Amino acid sequence: MAKPVYLLNGPNLNLLGNRQPEIYGRITLDDLRLQSARHAKTLELEIEFRQSNSEGTLVDWIQEARDKASGIIINAAAYSHTSLALLDALQASDLPVIELHLSNIYARESFRHHSHISQAANGVICGFGADGYNLALSAMARLLES
Amino acid sequence: MAKPVYLLNGPNLNLLGNRQPEIYGRITLDDLRLQSARHAKTLELEIEFRQSNSEGTLVDWIQEARDKASGIIINAAAYSHTSLALLDALQASDLPVIELHLSNIYARESFRHHSHISQAANGVICGFGADGYNLALSAMARLLES
Amino acid sequence: MAKPVYLLNGPNLNLLGNRQPEIYGRITLDDLRLQSARHAKTLELEIEFRQSNSEGTLVDWIQEARDKASGIIINAAAYSHTSLALLDALQASDLPVIELHLSNIYARESFRHHSHISQAANGVICGFGADGYNLALSAMARLLES
Amino acid sequence: MAKPVYLLNGPNLNLLGNRQPEIYGRITLDDLRLQSARHAKTLELEIEFRQSNSEGTLVDWIQEARDKASGIIINAAAYSHTSLALLDALQASDLPVIELHLSNIYARESFRHHSHISQAANGVICGFGADGYNLALSAMARLLES
Amino acid sequence: MAKPVYLLNGPNLNLLGNRQPEIYGRITLDDLRLQSARHAKTLELEIEFRQSNSEGTLVDWIQEARDKASGIIINAAAYSHTSLALLDALQASDLPVIELHLSNIYARESFRHHSHISQAANGVICGFGADGYNLALSAMARLLES
Amino acid sequence: MAKPVYLLNGPNLNLLGNRQPEIYGRITLDDLRLQSARHAKTLELEIEFRQSNSEGTLVDWIQEARDKASGIIINAAAYSHTSLALLDALQASDLPVIELHLSNIYARESFRHHSHISQAANGVICGFGADGYNLALSAMARLLES
Amino acid sequence: MAKPVYLLNGPNLNLLGNRQPEIYGRITLDDLRLQSARHAKTLELEIEFRQSNSEGTLVDWIQEARDKASGIIINAAAYSHTSLALLDALQASDLPVIELHLSNIYARESFRHHSHISQAANGVICGFGADGYNLALSAMARLLES
Amino acid sequence: MAKPVYLLNGPNLNLLGNRQPEIYGRITLDDLRLQSARHAKTLELEIEFRQSNSEGTLVDWIQEARDKASGIIINAAAYSHTSLALLDALQASDLPVIELHLSNIYARESFRHHSHISQAANGVICGFGADGYNLALSAMARLLES
Amino acid sequence: MAKPVYLLNGPNLNLLGNRQPEIYGRITLDDLRLQSARHAKTLELEIEFRQSNSEGTLVDWIQEARDKASGIIINAAAYSHTSLALLDALQASDLPVIELHLSNIYARESFRHHSHISQAANGVICGFGADGYNLALSAMARLLES
Amino acid sequence: MAKPVYLLNGPNLNLLGNRQPEIYGRITLDDLRLQSARHAKTLELEIEFRQSNSEGTLVDWIQEARDKASGIIINAAAYSHTSLALLDALQASDLPVIELHLSNIYARESFRHHSHISQAANGVICGFGADGYNLALSAMARLLES
Amino acid sequence: MAKPVYLLNGPNLNLLGNRQPEIYGRITLDDLRLQSARHAKTLELEIEFRQSNSEGTLVDWIQEARDKASGIIINAAAYSHTSLALLDALQASDLPVIELHLSNIYARESFRHHSHISQAANGVICGFGADGYNLALSAMARLLES
Amino acid sequence: MAKPVYLLNGPNLNLLGNRQPEIYGRITLDDLRLQSARHAKTLELEIEFRQSNSEGTLVDWIQEARDKASGIIINAAAYSHTSLALLDALQASDLPVIELHLSNIYARESFRHHSHISQAANGVICGFGADGYNLALSAMARLLES
Repeated sequence: MAKPVYLLNGPNLNLLGNRQPEIYGRITLDDLRLQSARHAKTLELEIEFRQSNSEGTLVDWIQEARDKASGIIINAAAYSHTSLALLDALQASDLPVIELHLSNIYARESFRHHSHISQAANGVICGFGADGYNLALSAMARLLES
Repeated sequence: MAKPVYLLNGPNLNLLGNRQPEIYGRITLDDLRLQSARHAKTLELEIEFRQSNSEGTLVDWIQEARDKASGIIINAAAYSHTSLALLDALQASDLPVIELHLSNIYARESFRHHSHISQAANGVICGFGADGYNLALSAMARLLES
Repeated sequence: MAKPVYLLNGPNLNLLGNRQPEIYGRITLDDLRLQSARHAKTLELEIEFRQSNSEGTLVDWIQEARDKASGIIINAAAYSHTSLALLDALQASDLPVIELHLSNIYARESFRHHSHISQAANGVICGFGADGYNLALSAMARLLES
Repeated sequence: MAKPVYLLNGPNLNLLGNRQPEIYGRITLDDLRLQSARHAKTLELEIEFRQSNSEGTLVDWIQEARDKASGIIINAAAYSHTSLALLDALQASDLPVIELHLSNIYARESFRHHSHISQAANGVICGFGADGYNLALSAMARLLES
Repeated sequence: MAKPVYLLNGPNLNLLGNRQPEIYGRITLDDLRLQSARHAKTLELEIEFRQSNSEGTLVDWIQEARDKASGIIINAAAYSHTSLALLDALQASDLPVIELHLSNIYARESFRHHSHISQAANGVICGFGADGYNLALSAMARLLES
Repeated sequence: MAKPVYLLNGPNLNLLGNRQPEIYGRITLDDLRLQSARHAKTLELEIEFRQSNSEGTLVDWIQEARDKASGIIINAAAYSHTSLALLDALQASDLPVIELHLSNIYARESFRHHSHISQAANGVICGFGADGYNLALSAMARLLES
Repeated sequence: MAKPVYLLNGPNLNLLGNRQPEIYGRITLDDLRLQSARHAKTLELEIEFRQSNSEGTLVDWIQEARDKASGIIINAAAYSHTSLALLDALQASDLPVIELHLSNIYARESFRHHSHISQAANGVICGFGADGYNLALSAMARLLES
Repeated sequence: MAKPVYLLNGPNLNLLGNRQPEIYGRITLDDLRLQSARHAKTLELEIEFRQSNSEGTLVDWIQEARDKASGIIINAAAYSHTSLALLDALQASDLPVIELHLSNIYARESFRHHSHISQAANGVICGFGADGYNLALSAMARLLES
Repeated sequence: MAKPVYLLNGPNLNLLGNRQPEIYGRITLDDLRLQSARHAKTLELEIEFRQSNSEGTLVDWIQEARDKASGIIINAAAYSHTSLALLDALQASDLPVIELHLSNIYARESFRHHSHISQAANGVICGFGADGYNLALSAMARLLES
Repeated sequence: MAKPVYLLNGPNLNLLGNRQPEIYGRITLDDLRLQSARHAKTLELEIEFRQSNSEGTLVDWIQEARDKASGIIINAAAYSHTSLALLDALQASDLPVIELHLSNIYARESFRHHSHISQAANGVICGFGADGYNLALSAMARLLES
Repeated sequence: MAKPVYLLNGPNLNLLGNRQPEIYGRITLDDLRLQSARHAKTLELEIEFRQSNSEGTLVDWIQEARDKASGIIINAAAYSHTSLALLDALQASDLPVIELHLSNIYARESFRHHSHISQAANGVICGFGADGYNLALSAMARLLES
Repeated sequence: MAKPVYLLNGPNLNLLGNRQPEIYGRITLDDLRLQSARHAKTLELEIEFRQSNSEGTLVDWIQEARDKASGIIINAAAYSHTSLALLDALQASDLPVIELHLSNIYARESFRHHSHISQAANGVICGFGADGYNLALSAMARLLES
């Protein structure tokens, strides 16, 4: 059986739907999980959908993905900008990696313009809110085909 | 009848398929045009697909799009990093805008990490090669629905 | 019954009283807890006083505070300077927030001059050692009145 | 017969009246042309009023002005901040040069604070909207007298 | 008889109550003087409350305080960010010094994030509006006890 | 009766006509006062023309202008580049403000390229020597009309 | 009985032997533990060898070391470059500290050139792969003698 | 028959002989064309000598050179410092490239010290005025031999 | 009769002898005045010795010196680092100018390394405490001879 | 017979034992030479131990080492931070290179944090005083084995 | 008899032919000397060809050239980027100076992009390997003619 | 017998009198030596006056001075700005040190504004040409008295 795609979500994404809806929309993380599962099915992909506020836990999950996943879609939120540990973990994963953000980070405060983990990503998708998860899954499906 | 989505391509993208295929792949711009037209059809979108090496022409086309297009997908290539005129034109367009790059610009030379036009874009998609055009069209379809 | 004020303490503050007493004084974290509780009583406030060395746990507590607290007083210590995750959590809390430091961080090494979380704080109090906790509680009492 | 003053307008100024009227006002470029011609007449000046979105065309016009114009008033818009070619052309013109902006560029985004072409200008006028064109013409009339 | 605490207020603070009330509140400087005197009384402190728009006068007053005051609370406003003369005067005062700001300067424009005089202060209090004066007096009372 | 426009001149402008005439011309400050008064009359404006070498005095005058003036034209000379107190005073004035310089500061030493007070100005005029005062008055007349 | 030396390993070091062997070599963390134990024995040292992906856990262990260890050898990996919490913990430890890296961080990407924790270390050893652990233990033995 | 060497000249070089002769000399572009043709003949090279003020046209010509030229000598003038589009076109050309400047750009204003296109050039020749064209042709002849 | 040399002293120098004697020595400003007068006499110079805490007053005095003095020795203290008004005044003075500091400012905090007024000085003397005044007078005597 | 390891010492290291013993210890360079020779013997290595205050001489010796040495241990002292010539020489040596410092340069003044020569070194050892020489020899022995 | 042209070569150029031949080619310094002498003869120039690893010696030779040479061609290698002493010596030489590099320094590591000595050079030639010496001699011949 | 004061002169100072006399004057180094000896005699000081173009030799002389000199006056010329080896040598000398420059380095090119060796100097004298040597000797005489 094919390995699932890991969809890893970073700090404060569990607040989705409540926190600053003018930026992040009104969809909750559970909505996203369902939507992603549905869309994955149409792509014939399995997904493993998780969220953590802890940098260390995210590193653990990326390491776990090395064996158990076929690819990683990561919305590392604030850790994108501050964590080299995530970068190292992703570079060590030897998997296709897609970096995902709900908002267009390049149009926000300047300290959100730089993401450490971009260096380890095949591609980046940002600014499409919840739709971004579907786009990332579609993109991952294509990466896994090639 | 619905207005088309403008797919605007910047300098040197007419070389696609020949230039540095290890970064940009072997697909030509004509292939991309066809592929985009096909994918647009599945999304019930019309497209207008153009390329220019001239910053001024790209500004002209964006201005034209204000009246004639429903949205703009722009792969401004090198002008992404140097052109404020494109930024101003896009901000004046009052249309949904998607910034597109074939390669992951955030994982390349540091002078390619900053794009002026990101500030005017709803979202950014980069690093997925030719697939990025389809992803951008799908994303645009969703933006136009909402 | 009124919700308590959360007093959250970041990394290494559990060493208080032992670590570099010439900077941080000889009072322990337990002393601070008692002193804060006493002073809170005079202000007719409840407090919830916690410490963690983990960024993720501090994020969790701030998220918890959204529902359970009336305000947050946070001495994020070293994470003040490195954590955008805390900033995001505090901005999402929709509560009055006071940033607190035992020492005057603006008179120390330059890498301690900038605090990410200041952007999410109503006010900042620093340099008054243990007295700062009482000042912060008094200030919070006033913020909650208005 | 006296040579005219060239009034050269850069990228996106043809959108005037439509684009972000809260910044640039509701007057169109044609209004500006008429207003400028009227005011020039009171100053006994001829004007040549043009707009282009192309950096190269603006360089061409400045070069043309070397022979055909008595002075240059230039609102280079976005090219002010990115074009050294315009700077070189203006420095080579050996004419009085006035730099003009509709908005106060020094009070906007920081990337608009620096204009390359200021080095080649006798003076700078910005922030007065359409009135700025009249002020610039008055200033040019005085420069041409001396 | 005990020496008073000097409360020194810098440029434009005499406009308090009128200027940008959304940032600085509606209380006037005279209100602040009265409120501070009242609160000082509860702390058994005398105060000397002054305001000047002149950097030199503020330096004079800080020098005067060396002999006549028990401590200095200073809201140097704009001079906080530009005056090394105030820093030198405060460092020479050999008195406890508290830096005070009505607004949270660290959450405003970046040129207000750095205060020269912080290096000479025991502690900093900012963002609490008029309440900050009372907090500073309370803090000073404690500094004078120890 | 209409309130006058304040024309405030900063440090060393009293030397006008003597100091570096190759940059500042040979006109004295008194010439400027007369010329400005004459030009103001044609615009049906009253003026109040002053000069000071003291930052604090300039702040005082701007504060006075809040009640007594209809607008402020300020040539803050060296204080343009170093004074945040002037910026704050101008922002608090709630009046139309025009920043004026005799020379083109953007074509001089780099430390003169940035003016703090530009943020508080409606517009900026520089590089036209004594003519700049007339231009600024004309511009102010237009601002007061609208 | 003598207290052991703590050998603390940071994020992703548990992947050793698999991750980028051209940089980090083929030895696993367990190999390193054994090798270190063997070499420690020849130096008559006890060791406590641990690894964590969590910044908070590493802080906990350093705090624990204050009482239970005679010295700390720390390979903080990515946290070397991003964690001030580790710096504070090490500075508070009052123990001899050796900073260790498998690769020569000063010859890699520029964001790995600066380590926050160097300030708290007696010495630094990097670039010797697995041999670095033995060198660090030898160096620690000497520090403990003196 | 051998393909010609393209000698491409950027903005304002058509002014040669008139513009700032103390920097650029009195030779015109037509003189340079003749001189270059003569010198090329001695080297048994054909040349194609062009000038444009437009960045886009220069990009077009470089792309044309991919098929039609044996090498490119480019004096991109001001675009050297601002154009990444030229860099990309040159990198895509797969031809020997020589960067040429009439003046010694490294001894002029600091904004002329950095040339984007140097990264795509085999070599750089600057500061020798008209002689530089001959030197560049000689150098190209040698590159084509090897 | 010969014009005197102006010895102008900036902010906080009136505290000399009391303030941080480990940096500035125990000599008072009055001692310095006497010592300078005595040394001037041996050089057959008159002196005018003044101190002010006000930037504006120092500008006034430098302007006064244009007519009344033969040269200016200035210890501008903190204003050296922050005042462009002093720079402009000194440049306008057309007199020999010596910059003087009691301490070696280049060996102190980095914000004291740069002095705006150095650009207007013939020479700089710093680090020799009270002796510096004599050295500056000797140097001025020599400048006045030549 | 095996080639010796070169131990090259840079400027001011001949002062060892006298200069700032609180940083560099009381051991002299001759002591170090003897200690190194002794330790080398236990590792069955020959050493060639030299010191020079001249950058050029150090370059000469590194070049000599290309033929005559099996490896280079270099304590370049101040030249570490300023010499690219040493970097080039070391990179050209094709030998294993160990960079050595007596003190922990990363915990000293910021201008000592960057060493040019680190790029050419296999590894770096610093902060262990005289013991560092033995550690470096041990490390070199291991490098030569592999 | 005409004075010779000095060809001065800096540190590590004596390794030519051995050191990193993929960058510097396989020609030795002696080959270069012969080739240069031969080419000089065709230009009717004498040459004096030298190499040193010592900055001081290069300064000495440039000073010697003031009297004995007609011009200086200098390949200062690493000292180009670090030596102001060479800059001063070249500026004092009052001779035509050509800066020469074998490789294209502007396409290498960023610390090689800036050459101090360019300010003192008439022109710069880089990236042409051994051919650069002939080009420089040809260029010098032309400079000496004019 | 008293030890002499070392007057050490750095690179290119042997050209004095010839090199750029508009900056450095027409006095030769030998004139300076004589003048210094004469002035030293009046101060009852011996001097040892030397010049070298070599950084290493200057380091040697400073080291020699530790035993043989009572103080060091150093005009390190270009090495002031580039040599940390000189800084280290001077800091190790434990002697009074005066830094001397003929020209006012703070009023010249920005790369001459920072001197590494200032940190090791008691005081700095610059801008007084040949007179500076006498001033430095007078200052040294006073330092040796105290």
